[in-house]
Amino acid sequence: MTGAESLLQALLANDITVCFMNPGTSEMHFVSALDRTPELRGVLCLFEGVCSGAADGYARMTGRPAATLLHLGPGLANALSNFHNARKARSPIVSIVGEHSRQHLEYDAPLSADIVAFARTVSTDVCVARSPDELPRAITQSVRAARRPPGQVATLIIPADLSWSEAPEPGPPVSPQARAVPDGARVCEAARLLKSRKSTGVLLSGSAALARGIDAAGRLAAAGARVFVDRNAARLASGRGRFQPTRIPYFPEPAQELLSGLEHLILVEAKPPVSFFAYPGLRSELAPGHCQMHVLAGFEEDGVAALESLADECGARRASPVTMEPHPDQDSIGAIIAELLPENAIVSDEMVSSGGEVTPHLVAAAPHDLLPVTGGSIGQGLPVALGAAVACPERKVVALEADGSGMYTLQSLWTIARERLDVTTVIFANRRYRILEIEMRRTGAHGFGPIADRMIDIGDPALDWVRLAAGMGVSASRAATGSEFRDQFDAAMQVREPRLIEAVLPF
Amino acid sequence: MTGAESLLQALLANDITVCFMNPGTSEMHFVSALDRTPELRGVLCLFEGVCSGAADGYARMTGRPAATLLHLGPGLANALSNFHNARKARSPIVSIVGEHSRQHLEYDAPLSADIVAFARTVSTDVCVARSPDELPRAITQSVRAARRPPGQVATLIIPADLSWSEAPEPGPPVSPQARAVPDGARVCEAARLLKSRKSTGVLLSGSAALARGIDAAGRLAAAGARVFVDRNAARLASGRGRFQPTRIPYFPEPAQELLSGLEHLILVEAKPPVSFFAYPGLRSELAPGHCQMHVLAGFEEDGVAALESLADECGARRASPVTMEPHPDQDSIGAIIAELLPENAIVSDEMVSSGGEVTPHLVAAAPHDLLPVTGGSIGQGLPVALGAAVACPERKVVALEADGSGMYTLQSLWTIARERLDVTTVIFANRRYRILEIEMRRTGAHGFGPIADRMIDIGDPALDWVRLAAGMGVSASRAATGSEFRDQFDAAMQVREPRLIEAVLPF
Repeated sequence: MTGAESLLQALLANDITVCFMNPGTSEMHFVSALDRTPELRGVLCLFEGVCSGAADGYARMTGRPAATLLHLGPGLANALSNFHNARKARSPIVSIVGEHSRQHLEYDAPLSADIVAFARTVSTDVCVARSPDELPRAITQSVRAARRPPGQVATLIIPADLSWSEAPEPGPPVSPQARAVPDGARVCEAARLLKSRKSTGVLLSGSAALARGIDAAGRLAAAGARVFVDRNAARLASGRGRFQPTRIPYFPEPAQELLSGLEHLILVEAKPPVSFFAYPGLRSELAPGHCQMHVLAGFEEDGVAALESLADECGARRASPVTMEPHPDQDSIGAIIAELLPENAIVSDEMVSSGGEVTPHLVAAAPHDLLPVTGGSIGQGLPVALGAAVACPERKVVALEADGSGMYTLQSLWTIARERLDVTTVIFANRRYRILEIEMRRTGAHGFGPIADRMIDIGDPALDWVRLAAGMGVSASRAATGSEFRDQFDAAMQVREPRLIEAVLPF
Repeated sequence: MTGAESLLQALLANDITVCFMNPGTSEMHFVSALDRTPELRGVLCLFEGVCSGAADGYARMTGRPAATLLHLGPGLANALSNFHNARKARSPIVSIVGEHSRQHLEYDAPLSADIVAFARTVSTDVCVARSPDELPRAITQSVRAARRPPGQVATLIIPADLSWSEAPEPGPPVSPQARAVPDGARVCEAARLLKSRKSTGVLLSGSAALARGIDAAGRLAAAGARVFVDRNAARLASGRGRFQPTRIPYFPEPAQELLSGLEHLILVEAKPPVSFFAYPGLRSELAPGHCQMHVLAGFEEDGVAALESLADECGARRASPVTMEPHPDQDSIGAIIAELLPENAIVSDEMVSSGGEVTPHLVAAAPHDLLPVTGGSIGQGLPVALGAAVACPERKVVALEADGSGMYTLQSLWTIARERLDVTTVIFANRRYRILEIEMRRTGAHGFGPIADRMIDIGDPALDWVRLAAGMGVSASRAATGSEFRDQFDAAMQVREPRLIEAVLPF
């Protein structure tokens, strides 16, 4: 078999069944081999940042890696910003990058670049296959690295001539590596803190923010614990009937206010909370300076098991029933989305400044999974929605996307249309980089004249998202009032096909 | 003055008057300071790869650096692939990247990343400003590095708190560094080779491919020299009445055939020619194995002066009058473009597989500058056209763009519309990654089944470039026949505003 065939069979043997790709000449043998491994689904994307973001969304929903297939250093370069987000999400991904043939490397051809240097910016595990015989070992190393808890972007670089050379059969599949269960001493110490009079909080992230972790945290809350969740967790079980841990606010002042008075913070697959940006005269740390941090479970450990043990240890048998006050503003776009969102939906959130008006409503929506911003690199919302839809074809995916952010990876819409994915995209069109308007004031930039204003004004010319979507094959409509939005969103929830709604704000 | 003000004033003092930007929170003070330095033109782009490609186009047309302003590591990541192309073009660019405030760096906030590692993939000169006092020195270092012949992408990383701190006035402007003139011995040796009976060629690239260099090369050709030009030169003076050096073909077989029999190749700001990709059983070097290479002028030297001296030394007083046979196919899209292209136009060429039908006609067009692919990273054509139009507002810019390639940085169209740039974009819509179809066969990938075919078919759904362009404010039309194309292209040449024509191929 060829190296390309050996690679694809190894992926399948390791239960990697999807490859988001934007291949070039160096990857043609992999593409050709797809017809001989039809169980491996190739998903073509028209920009590499769509591939990396989609693999991130896929991993967040399945816990398993997808592969990406990219062309040389510059192809990888275009994927890096969403690999950055995937790295912060701790998503397992096997990133396969074609390199020039070994004989060609010395000549500094136009596309020659230092692929390893590109890869190291997002991958601690970068493997270069040096010969056909090495391929099985290299693939095994990359799959193992990607899946090692908590998950990472592992890069596998394969010179083109290896793909067309005779290569050995793939090695045995990698045994899954379970997360280690934290030892009982940490559980006992956390229970002691929670039971003491000291003001003690619990902060969830990673797998602890999924449904089982949230349920266990709800038991702790019923026993009196203050439970918080990382606002940049990779995935968060949300919606009515579920315990709702408090999301730590984006801006440091309300976050510090929320956490003020805490003396201990128990970290469950989470790190000590810090603000997104620094501002003149403000601290970066969000917990008080005297607050002690206690790791109940590290990123790579089983935070859910630890939480359940902790709840048992605290004698917290069950969660309190969850009741919610109806939000006062029932005509807002957030209220409409929350009302109409079907059960078990997946929500990809890159609303940025519009999120403040929507997210508070989502806690009252039918139970759903929320996929938040993780690494803050703009342009993740649409690709993550795409990947989640490939991962979970039976579930409705809703991408809540800012107009500025959506432009970074708008090519996602084409793949969503091509694969007939059940994704409804809502574009929050305020025609500004409004978050920057807010941030400019916050960072104390004095003066805010017409030239600066023009650098955050994306309304001249106005982006026409209905045309952009239609140009890539996605049915689209524009809503200028709440009532129009309600009708269009309701219709989109009734079908199982791609839709886009441009909500021109404010209503 | 603040650090931000000091930076902008230093840019102006160094004749850097344009900044292509996609700023974020860390760069807000630079944006705010624009109102106090209105001579510095900020050009907003909706994706960072547009900024880097535009700065490349600007540098190719002016020989001077523009600045780019990008947000943290992930913002730089999105710009890297067009910085790769700029690096191969040896374009001078000052790439300014905002970093988190120094106090914030230790906390691994969501957007934290190793910016230096990102930058090193495209910049040999990466400067991190560590304090406000250091700013003037850091800026001077980056400007000097960018402008050091032949030109490079210099990266300057500035923590946000430096931009809002009190900083010193900018240092004195950097003195321009002239290219060194190659010594006479090299000229004499080259002249000796050309006058001997040995088969000797001359290969041009860099500044030697601009008008003066081409003219000098025309004198050499009149004296019997075989003159070639690097097909990936950053800029090439082209069009009727001018001497036309032979562009080295893309595929190695015809390139090797062309260069067969050469015993000496005189390199003028060029490197020994190599094929773009390697193929099974083919050599990467394009000149024969026994051909000796002679550097008349290195990349950083004055190849034009050397060529002129060489022509003098060879007694080549003037070029032969240039006459051209009319191309047999006068109804093709290439012939129409060549016929209607106005004098002194700038042509950005990213036609990829469609280029073979167009480029041969361009030599008969009115004199123009051609901006070819340099680093081979797809997505440079539209941004380079944008930057060239900012650099040369009095000249018509024509972007000849493949449909697949155009999708990587289609956001360019929005900035072209916003800045009312005189750019006509022609999309060659074959709805395939046709180059990959060719390359797949060439790399010997056996089998080419329906799944592989689908990975190079971008026609399902068909991209509607008229809607995509209109969605970003560019007037657009579709041509399905040669006659429609002629009318639309002719109309576009008569106006001085953005236009896009989707040419649905084949006619």
